[in-house]
Amino acid sequence: MPPLAAIGAAVIGTGFIGTVHVEALRRIGVQVHGVLGSTPERGALRAEALGVAHAYADLDELLADDRVQVVHVTSPNDLHLPQTRAILEARRHVVCEKPLAMTAAESAELVALAARTGLINATNFNIRYYPLNQHARDTVTAGSLGDVRLVTGRYFQDWLLLASDWNWRLEPGRGGALRAVGDIGSHWMDLMTFVTGQRISAVMAELATFIDTRLEPTGPVETFSTERTAEAVERRIATEDAALIMLRFEGGARGAVSISQISAGRKNSLQYEIDGSESSIAWDSENPDQIWLGHRDRANEILLKNPALMSERGTAAAALPAGHVEGFFDTHAAHFRLVYADVVAGGPSAEPHYATFADGHDEMLVGDAILRSAREGRWVDVERVPAASPTSPTSTTEASR
Amino acid sequence: MPPLAAIGAAVIGTGFIGTVHVEALRRIGVQVHGVLGSTPERGALRAEALGVAHAYADLDELLADDRVQVVHVTSPNDLHLPQTRAILEARRHVVCEKPLAMTAAESAELVALAARTGLINATNFNIRYYPLNQHARDTVTAGSLGDVRLVTGRYFQDWLLLASDWNWRLEPGRGGALRAVGDIGSHWMDLMTFVTGQRISAVMAELATFIDTRLEPTGPVETFSTERTAEAVERRIATEDAALIMLRFEGGARGAVSISQISAGRKNSLQYEIDGSESSIAWDSENPDQIWLGHRDRANEILLKNPALMSERGTAAAALPAGHVEGFFDTHAAHFRLVYADVVAGGPSAEPHYATFADGHDEMLVGDAILRSAREGRWVDVERVPAASPTSPTSTTEASR
Amino acid sequence: MPPLAAIGAAVIGTGFIGTVHVEALRRIGVQVHGVLGSTPERGALRAEALGVAHAYADLDELLADDRVQVVHVTSPNDLHLPQTRAILEARRHVVCEKPLAMTAAESAELVALAARTGLINATNFNIRYYPLNQHARDTVTAGSLGDVRLVTGRYFQDWLLLASDWNWRLEPGRGGALRAVGDIGSHWMDLMTFVTGQRISAVMAELATFIDTRLEPTGPVETFSTERTAEAVERRIATEDAALIMLRFEGGARGAVSISQISAGRKNSLQYEIDGSESSIAWDSENPDQIWLGHRDRANEILLKNPALMSERGTAAAALPAGHVEGFFDTHAAHFRLVYADVVAGGPSAEPHYATFADGHDEMLVGDAILRSAREGRWVDVERVPAASPTSPTSTTEASR
Amino acid sequence: MPPLAAIGAAVIGTGFIGTVHVEALRRIGVQVHGVLGSTPERGALRAEALGVAHAYADLDELLADDRVQVVHVTSPNDLHLPQTRAILEARRHVVCEKPLAMTAAESAELVALAARTGLINATNFNIRYYPLNQHARDTVTAGSLGDVRLVTGRYFQDWLLLASDWNWRLEPGRGGALRAVGDIGSHWMDLMTFVTGQRISAVMAELATFIDTRLEPTGPVETFSTERTAEAVERRIATEDAALIMLRFEGGARGAVSISQISAGRKNSLQYEIDGSESSIAWDSENPDQIWLGHRDRANEILLKNPALMSERGTAAAALPAGHVEGFFDTHAAHFRLVYADVVAGGPSAEPHYATFADGHDEMLVGDAILRSAREGRWVDVERVPAASPTSPTSTTEASR
Repeated sequence: MPPLAAIGAAVIGTGFIGTVHVEALRRIGVQVHGVLGSTPERGALRAEALGVAHAYADLDELLADDRVQVVHVTSPNDLHLPQTRAILEARRHVVCEKPLAMTAAESAELVALAARTGLINATNFNIRYYPLNQHARDTVTAGSLGDVRLVTGRYFQDWLLLASDWNWRLEPGRGGALRAVGDIGSHWMDLMTFVTGQRISAVMAELATFIDTRLEPTGPVETFSTERTAEAVERRIATEDAALIMLRFEGGARGAVSISQISAGRKNSLQYEIDGSESSIAWDSENPDQIWLGHRDRANEILLKNPALMSERGTAAAALPAGHVEGFFDTHAAHFRLVYADVVAGGPSAEPHYATFADGHDEMLVGDAILRSAREGRWVDVERVPAASPTSPTSTTEASR
Repeated sequence: MPPLAAIGAAVIGTGFIGTVHVEALRRIGVQVHGVLGSTPERGALRAEALGVAHAYADLDELLADDRVQVVHVTSPNDLHLPQTRAILEARRHVVCEKPLAMTAAESAELVALAARTGLINATNFNIRYYPLNQHARDTVTAGSLGDVRLVTGRYFQDWLLLASDWNWRLEPGRGGALRAVGDIGSHWMDLMTFVTGQRISAVMAELATFIDTRLEPTGPVETFSTERTAEAVERRIATEDAALIMLRFEGGARGAVSISQISAGRKNSLQYEIDGSESSIAWDSENPDQIWLGHRDRANEILLKNPALMSERGTAAAALPAGHVEGFFDTHAAHFRLVYADVVAGGPSAEPHYATFADGHDEMLVGDAILRSAREGRWVDVERVPAASPTSPTSTTEASR
Repeated sequence: MPPLAAIGAAVIGTGFIGTVHVEALRRIGVQVHGVLGSTPERGALRAEALGVAHAYADLDELLADDRVQVVHVTSPNDLHLPQTRAILEARRHVVCEKPLAMTAAESAELVALAARTGLINATNFNIRYYPLNQHARDTVTAGSLGDVRLVTGRYFQDWLLLASDWNWRLEPGRGGALRAVGDIGSHWMDLMTFVTGQRISAVMAELATFIDTRLEPTGPVETFSTERTAEAVERRIATEDAALIMLRFEGGARGAVSISQISAGRKNSLQYEIDGSESSIAWDSENPDQIWLGHRDRANEILLKNPALMSERGTAAAALPAGHVEGFFDTHAAHFRLVYADVVAGGPSAEPHYATFADGHDEMLVGDAILRSAREGRWVDVERVPAASPTSPTSTTEASR
Repeated sequence: MPPLAAIGAAVIGTGFIGTVHVEALRRIGVQVHGVLGSTPERGALRAEALGVAHAYADLDELLADDRVQVVHVTSPNDLHLPQTRAILEARRHVVCEKPLAMTAAESAELVALAARTGLINATNFNIRYYPLNQHARDTVTAGSLGDVRLVTGRYFQDWLLLASDWNWRLEPGRGGALRAVGDIGSHWMDLMTFVTGQRISAVMAELATFIDTRLEPTGPVETFSTERTAEAVERRIATEDAALIMLRFEGGARGAVSISQISAGRKNSLQYEIDGSESSIAWDSENPDQIWLGHRDRANEILLKNPALMSERGTAAAALPAGHVEGFFDTHAAHFRLVYADVVAGGPSAEPHYATFADGHDEMLVGDAILRSAREGRWVDVERVPAASPTSPTSTTEASR
């Protein structure tokens, strides 16, 4: 096997999250040969700022670069399908941002294509890779909580609180029919399926658009920027500012999650609690290096991330000793270490320890059910066709063990 | 007006919460002339333990005691209607525990009877009386948050986690058709209506009974006791261990709450967050002497209970200076001070600052809608008949301002 | 033995803490026959506001009231000695606020007098009576932490932050030569001796007066009031705004505490951590219903106050089930229940479970050493003469077991 | 100026912190050409694991590598002087771990040598570079807190709790005469000088060695490892497990800090609070992405790390939007970005924004005073000779503005 340092990568998208991909890849020792920006000019500027050697003019040039074995896709959602399709067809491994595609039909195509090519395919559900979430999964699936009964939580942000806040995610043509659900709700739901080993079987959703007219600036806007601009035009908004969703899981658990991008003061607050028949577990992304374990007949516990005390996967995901907080950036290094172990090995492992396109597709299916439920005001089952792909979603893998 | 010390009271029920009523009344200077236990023997034992002079043999003896002007009802739910009816008919003011009755039909009767008699009627939604919840109400209704958009939270306990946990609330004949919702969910929903000034207009509910068979001990059981007993018989359980509820409010806000009595490690954890168009506010009953205020474009705030910084009602509800934590017991003293100000004045004020029977009835109506929604799997409107009572619920009062 | 309700009490002082004494006594069922205010007029006003039947004109009238068996002293510190002496000489049991006296010589006199009379004597170190502090003591003295090594913490307030803040405690003639240390530091040090069972043997102290001139209002000022007044005169301040103290304990533990009344935003924040050779324990008065237990080789623990899980004394001090927060007021009820059990029994028990005058005196001895250490810039031993009193301080009792 | 990607670096030391240096350098785009391990074998193994191209056989080989412009020193403390001296003499910029040397005499030599060579010299006080600590410095030095009065806190760990815990830091010959103070206390003290802009002028210290005999394993041990080994020999321990230190600052502030490596459950817990005449500020390394601001007459504040709300330096140190937690690793990237801006510019800036050797030396001087104070049981002044170096410590720079 080649050393990790012999692997070459390229990153599409140079915004906030594209930068994280570039830096996390370099951290773990992967060569990032170039980036592809939204325009050649922007790509060149960002490449220089990031200290990346090259900015590709377009995807064709990128795919013609033989040093590149893996391509990371962090462009707006509407580009995920065409770019990822081209990457796979050019026989490159791919790591794609969530949501995987604009619709479940699109993501199904990507799952099928990835299976056909036999290439490595990963969806960047990075929150899984906080060491304590890896530990939580092992704790829950090992049965330490007893039967999982109740799965609750939220994902709140405030960067779209005001009518003057704008981002491409607000445009259904670029972000998809679901906005808050697709952008952050998908993280929460993937995480819960990952930790519990149970897929979501049915949903009952309420979507709310409190700000029905927003001001679109005439210039470009960075994600998470909260600055306002003078020149703007009014746009009608159809996608949800917030969502309230009730959930039924395949293994019998019930749940609920609240999702919002208009909760003042909550910058990026994902919380979950999983209540089992014996114990509970809870985690908060604003304090990610500790996890709460609830007990009925003894004191509750707070476990700090601790390689000496966590499960094997939890320890594997930790780069630092206990008490040395690991954050959002570190999750990407942990994620990419898992993916690139497969890259070094030459192809996807039988049961990848990272989220695959199948996992990304599963969240698209849940999203479809959410949309339908909200429109029809009733419980809607998540419709899954029997999957035969070699990289089936996590929960299926779990169930078959 | 007579001094407070000239007012006489009696308390029905001598369990955990009955004890709190007795002690809180004494704290504020009211004479507690006697208690009525579930049996004369138990009443006598508890009266001695509490240092109360007398244990009534039955309600008739209590109502024959001319020194008693106010009766507190803390008996099991099925007794609320007959006892409260008798108390009102005997022309005594009454403070009743929540839920106010077994059904909305019962609570409607009590609202009407209280209105007819002109007597003071209060429902013990004690959580309103944490000073910071009084302050939160003033903050929200004064518009400091802007328009209220999202109202989310939970109320979790764990004292019914195990099949061996038993309490009269598990028997529909004594506790009502709703259990977790009636016992603790009603607190959360009343609190949110109180703080936002918006009544709940529609609900979508999921009720879950994870433990369908429990062991009923042959002897008596104290509420919140988690000890197990050797001798018990199996009972089928029909009421919910947990509930997930989505909410629409009259003023346009959307919400969701999760309610559970089977969440290991959560002893009595009520949390809420109210997100407005400008700011947010959040509170946690496990740390009740501080409240969180969320902002988009400046630092978030933590306000410790502080008579020097709170609204007028917040300050009125506070007995102690900032930093001297006030807890569950203190809320009862704050509540009863409000009620007994009316008692001293001779009758209910035009707009009582405490929860009346009308408020207790409103939660029963919401409960009816929850039951129907869960059974039918759809959104159900809360059906309210136009109220003409002099003690209309808080939210109506608010709406008319 | 007479019932508790047959016991009569009177309270000297009608300010913030005097009110707490009155209400806590009533809560537990003791008859409060009257109060004695700083002036007859103020006493009368406060008696009416509190619903207490009588305001004594002076201490003589109080001591002439044969119904009164116990007197609570909550007057300014300079009155503790003369009033308590008179009370004991009039053969009444006494509960006195901390600091017990102005000097160790004064408190020694009170210890001796109390011993001679055989009457019940208690110092209101109320923080001991948070249920989890009772539990902590049992946990630590049972050896669960191993050898106690490090005892650290702080007690911070902000009500004397500004030069315009005034209170009688600022006058050495009324409050004593130590201010922050006497008023709040004494709480922390008593608590640590209580929890560890180790008395302080030597101290090294730094006292700091940051505001050397303050404005004394011409009118009266309530403790913890932060309002400012227009008319005031300048006063030179000699007592400390803050103290930093290093500690050696009799059992070999080392410690340090920071004490301040000028820490903006800290209203009444006492924190401690006790680190043993096996485990640690930490508590915070701003969140008093939970305690932290630290471990090296397993997860840390958070114990919520829980009668089902605490030690016998912890459970005895708890009035409410887990999750129902108990606060500052509740500690007084728990304290007085212990004291009045002795009152009902007719005299002090052999090993009182509450802080006696001997405990109050011990903190005065520590205070003397602190003053000397700060003046001389060196470690100073706490000078204790061999005690032979029947109510010897807690730590001695412990050591002799 | 050359691009950052053209800069070459090498790292001495391949343990926990050496790995962090390598990965943080790669993250920001610096080429790490090789590492130097404690032995050539270990160096080779670690280079392969880290994906670094080369493992130097010795320092000579490293210094012969012309591609290397900056050397990072993360070896045991006794090697800092000889290695750093050789690096500077070979005209390479240098980033050295703390403590900078074994004694103040050694660190003085390094300060002088660095000044003579004109090369960039940095001490890795990484905790300064949490964005909120940069923001805190700007907040405090801008006067937002008023006059700084009280500076308190702690730094607690537990990885040396047991007699079976071993590390080279326990050997005075390799770690220095101070252990807990040198290893972690120096971080706290540097941070406080950085944030307040005040150097420590005098100290009063108590050092405690609770475990006077430890077991040294016969094999190698990783820092922060808590695993135990079977074969070991007894060693007498002379260095402190814990230290209690009182502080006087040049600007008049008083302070105290507790330092411990034997506090069970505290993995790496640094806390500080700075109380000024108007407001306070507090921070906790276990939750580093938020900071507390205390106020007397309005609500306290919690500021989440937020590029939109922090000071210029705070924002510059932040790599991610609000709510995306940055941790221990990220501080190194932020630190190295500052240092390498100077590297790209060709030499140290007039007022470096990072900790220089002069800052590292200043902590050695404080350490000397601590040692003397503990031995003599009295306050000891920090003895500073007038510095004329171009890279004078932060506080001097501040004072001269």
